[in-house]
Amino acid sequence: MFHIIFLFSFLFSSSHAADFCVANLKRAETPAGFQCIRPIHVKASDFVFSGLNMAGNTTNIINAAVTPAFVAQFPGLNGLGLSTARLDLTVGGVIPMHTHPAASEILYVVEGSIKAGFVSSANTPYIETLKEGDVMVFPQGLLHFQLNAGKSKALAIVTFNNPDPGLQILDFALFGNNLPSSLVEMTTFLDDAQVKKLKAVLGGTG
Amino acid sequence: MFHIIFLFSFLFSSSHAADFCVANLKRAETPAGFQCIRPIHVKASDFVFSGLNMAGNTTNIINAAVTPAFVAQFPGLNGLGLSTARLDLTVGGVIPMHTHPAASEILYVVEGSIKAGFVSSANTPYIETLKEGDVMVFPQGLLHFQLNAGKSKALAIVTFNNPDPGLQILDFALFGNNLPSSLVEMTTFLDDAQVKKLKAVLGGTG
Amino acid sequence: MFHIIFLFSFLFSSSHAADFCVANLKRAETPAGFQCIRPIHVKASDFVFSGLNMAGNTTNIINAAVTPAFVAQFPGLNGLGLSTARLDLTVGGVIPMHTHPAASEILYVVEGSIKAGFVSSANTPYIETLKEGDVMVFPQGLLHFQLNAGKSKALAIVTFNNPDPGLQILDFALFGNNLPSSLVEMTTFLDDAQVKKLKAVLGGTG
Amino acid sequence: MFHIIFLFSFLFSSSHAADFCVANLKRAETPAGFQCIRPIHVKASDFVFSGLNMAGNTTNIINAAVTPAFVAQFPGLNGLGLSTARLDLTVGGVIPMHTHPAASEILYVVEGSIKAGFVSSANTPYIETLKEGDVMVFPQGLLHFQLNAGKSKALAIVTFNNPDPGLQILDFALFGNNLPSSLVEMTTFLDDAQVKKLKAVLGGTG
Amino acid sequence: MFHIIFLFSFLFSSSHAADFCVANLKRAETPAGFQCIRPIHVKASDFVFSGLNMAGNTTNIINAAVTPAFVAQFPGLNGLGLSTARLDLTVGGVIPMHTHPAASEILYVVEGSIKAGFVSSANTPYIETLKEGDVMVFPQGLLHFQLNAGKSKALAIVTFNNPDPGLQILDFALFGNNLPSSLVEMTTFLDDAQVKKLKAVLGGTG
Amino acid sequence: MFHIIFLFSFLFSSSHAADFCVANLKRAETPAGFQCIRPIHVKASDFVFSGLNMAGNTTNIINAAVTPAFVAQFPGLNGLGLSTARLDLTVGGVIPMHTHPAASEILYVVEGSIKAGFVSSANTPYIETLKEGDVMVFPQGLLHFQLNAGKSKALAIVTFNNPDPGLQILDFALFGNNLPSSLVEMTTFLDDAQVKKLKAVLGGTG
Repeated sequence: MFHIIFLFSFLFSSSHAADFCVANLKRAETPAGFQCIRPIHVKASDFVFSGLNMAGNTTNIINAAVTPAFVAQFPGLNGLGLSTARLDLTVGGVIPMHTHPAASEILYVVEGSIKAGFVSSANTPYIETLKEGDVMVFPQGLLHFQLNAGKSKALAIVTFNNPDPGLQILDFALFGNNLPSSLVEMTTFLDDAQVKKLKAVLGGTG
Repeated sequence: MFHIIFLFSFLFSSSHAADFCVANLKRAETPAGFQCIRPIHVKASDFVFSGLNMAGNTTNIINAAVTPAFVAQFPGLNGLGLSTARLDLTVGGVIPMHTHPAASEILYVVEGSIKAGFVSSANTPYIETLKEGDVMVFPQGLLHFQLNAGKSKALAIVTFNNPDPGLQILDFALFGNNLPSSLVEMTTFLDDAQVKKLKAVLGGTG
Repeated sequence: MFHIIFLFSFLFSSSHAADFCVANLKRAETPAGFQCIRPIHVKASDFVFSGLNMAGNTTNIINAAVTPAFVAQFPGLNGLGLSTARLDLTVGGVIPMHTHPAASEILYVVEGSIKAGFVSSANTPYIETLKEGDVMVFPQGLLHFQLNAGKSKALAIVTFNNPDPGLQILDFALFGNNLPSSLVEMTTFLDDAQVKKLKAVLGGTG
Repeated sequence: MFHIIFLFSFLFSSSHAADFCVANLKRAETPAGFQCIRPIHVKASDFVFSGLNMAGNTTNIINAAVTPAFVAQFPGLNGLGLSTARLDLTVGGVIPMHTHPAASEILYVVEGSIKAGFVSSANTPYIETLKEGDVMVFPQGLLHFQLNAGKSKALAIVTFNNPDPGLQILDFALFGNNLPSSLVEMTTFLDDAQVKKLKAVLGGTG
Repeated sequence: MFHIIFLFSFLFSSSHAADFCVANLKRAETPAGFQCIRPIHVKASDFVFSGLNMAGNTTNIINAAVTPAFVAQFPGLNGLGLSTARLDLTVGGVIPMHTHPAASEILYVVEGSIKAGFVSSANTPYIETLKEGDVMVFPQGLLHFQLNAGKSKALAIVTFNNPDPGLQILDFALFGNNLPSSLVEMTTFLDDAQVKKLKAVLGGTG
Repeated sequence: MFHIIFLFSFLFSSSHAADFCVANLKRAETPAGFQCIRPIHVKASDFVFSGLNMAGNTTNIINAAVTPAFVAQFPGLNGLGLSTARLDLTVGGVIPMHTHPAASEILYVVEGSIKAGFVSSANTPYIETLKEGDVMVFPQGLLHFQLNAGKSKALAIVTFNNPDPGLQILDFALFGNNLPSSLVEMTTFLDDAQVKKLKAVLGGTG
């Protein structure tokens, strides 16, 4: 029996493991993700994330919260092509128009009722009202939204095919930074008063 | 205003849409997935699947059920790099050792407590007990399992980074077909009696 | 000499050519692009597109025109990972805020001066004023714009790393379709009057 | 002539070479493989591996040996999408049931006769007996095996479409580690005696 | 037991199999490869190719033969990311300078001695003399060659990370077609006499 | 309003940005490109390159110049799947036969007339004469050339679907290094006098 163990242990003696690549968040990133911590330091708990097991704080203007489990929060995802997030929506809650620049998304309704939709490149809206247990898919890079369609709180889990899907919330991209109002107006046809109003609300300048 | 509409409608006049590719399950597949139905026939409901909103039948030997939402059940996933499934485990339920040949998996515990684990290429088991709201990731192609670790039913949602992740359940691969017992024994070191016993249970021949 | 010809012609006798896959636009698409026309029907001219050699019609509200050479216009691009487009901007012209859901973009200024920018997922604008001969890159899936920054017409060529990059113009996605005004307002925080004004301008309903 | 040399040397003056990326095994890995050594240190011999030119030690219980040329043994493979291994099987030799989590495999019989097979996700075995010069392909991630089908030693070369294909040998994953026997039994339906017997043979505990 | 079989057979009832995609060579290709034959028609023999088990005809000017097992010859490779070929070189045999536009290559010397090399983009040759059992890797898209370095015949197996790697033999590309001599001369700096001599030898016109 | 800002700023607090990965050219490369500089150091100007806004020096034997904007010159391209270059051709100018090992190319004629072509793996030349504004695509890895087809200077912009496409110029690969003349002759069938003549011209030895 010694021989078979000897034989295969040869295969397992290398200092690396292709199976996974738990992120070392302190080192420089690469286009394919973070550098890996040494396999010898990897523990079972690196593959588990408990940050989604309680509701986010929805006491805010959107009556909603997004709690991400992306690679920055959950380093075990690095290189594995997946990430996830928790959406909490109280009554009237809404996840505003946004895109994920580098991922498709699939949503599962854990609790409540959610109206969700996306707009295609061909300018067509695809909107559905989902009930508990329903699943909806949102193609990569398109504008989409979710809102509570019911009379009680809603909870959904969304999953992305990228450990770092990105998130561009339309209002923050346009109004929550120092992008000059004049540029916003020229490139969106929105009125100056509207732009300045939302800049004020969302902390933008310029 | 006519002009701006005219201008951009030029861009949208093509007969196709790169955004998505809802599967035509009746046509031949390709290595990248199914052929698409014509965009003009695509409806919002093509992006929604309601087959996961009730528990699978767990009155079986494993006290568990897997309900898939892969491209064959949910054609809207085609080309979008994602699929999902629902796991129901009654008390004592187990999803036996299996692999997905072409996808990593992320699991979210909707209800109950689940013990889950995988074994790496380096032969190391990574096992954790998950509670409601926990997330665990399983790297592509490795043997893994899930079982109910609590005293009430458990429900989990798993998501894959492939619309067609495949599923190879170890026991079915070894004992649930006409793979000759002698071959199974030579390639697994299992005893003849053990192989024949499980072949009988799982409907295998040879 | 017969032998060498005989030898290698064996390699070349197959009915296909992996080098390229000129699109058959009449057949169903796949997630990887269109089906190929038979190699025997492929001509040198299939790899050339002359539709960009004159300015688009800029007599419109944006004083600009986008002329695409995507796979739908230029089938020779199918499977080759590239497409291109021509931007014409008269004085005051603007290409409004938009995204390409599935491609990065590189822009070369052929003539004139262009101010261009994008907003990152981290909500930071990156804006530069480009002169003739300058190149700028726009990462995949992010909101970006271009406008004529000079006192004469401007011409730019943009190239994408996808034969079918998609194009989602923000104003059309929000206001140029039947997406209900109430939904737009809930998901963008825009005022009702603003939404209805732009719906009217861009031909939207609801 | 000076000019043409000057002209093109400009292109070649960068400190890197995209053509290849010989692994620096001492540095941290990334999801796309190892970091590259500096191109100036790359030698022709970095692209050659001589470790497969003699038979592995087959004096063991499986009468077989696997000698890998994966990136850990052959750093020149890094980033090039390929690796290889040598299989030696004496009479009665067997490469037990195993998977490669991240690669398809192609096998060429250099000498002797080999029976080989894989089981699909649909639970169907595909088994063939190969003679010298035959080639067989094994799709990614599926259980497969090889055994000597003849009366003399057999030699095969296998190649993978991944510099680090991984190797999960079923018996080692189940019985050669500290995975508790009770978990193995619950997730495989194997009998306790069988599990303990193989744990003892393969050095497993628990 | 009925239940467990019922349970999982649900998963296996779809009309397709993601594991593999045996090419239907009679149907139109796609950028990702050929359309698949129906899984129900797939046999074990579809994964085996016996066309490499005898030497190619080396009675030719190069004293060598290339026998491919690409997807056109071996449809089972479709979608699996691999192909292979057999090189036979009698004494003095040479595989002339060539590239594979879409694949890296790994070579295993089955018999004899082979001198092989490639030239990098940085213009550096990497040349080694290989003996039986040696392996050499050739990065994607670069000019390379192989020649018999010994006093007896040589046999090598090469494998590519693409079912359809392409093969562009330099002499045939330049001299074996109707590419006008004047164009060849302008773009290679070769003398007119040299071009016409090789055009005559290789059957080129113009 | 505090709440909404607080809410989303959580998402944006990570130390990285998946949107882009500006190359740190001083650190080791990886198979997926260079390591990224810290997002906090990224400026708008990192996405702009001005090195193409003047003609290259065409006072050379080919009456032409290639000015690259690859990742080594334009680090902002890292990870974004694109690069570009400027071609200047005076009357009689020619970009000699070459390949890009890892990219397709699309060419836009800014000024003048250009004859361009490529040769397929099936040995067929595809040649066209392009006028100002025309676009031509060159599939990955194939030999191709461009030459001035007019009576005045020509300018073209080429774009690649790889930040580091590589460039192998046939004459330099064969004659501009220390590849022994005897090897060149054996692998190309070129005459010794021809090889030595071009070696002398292009600075090769051996």
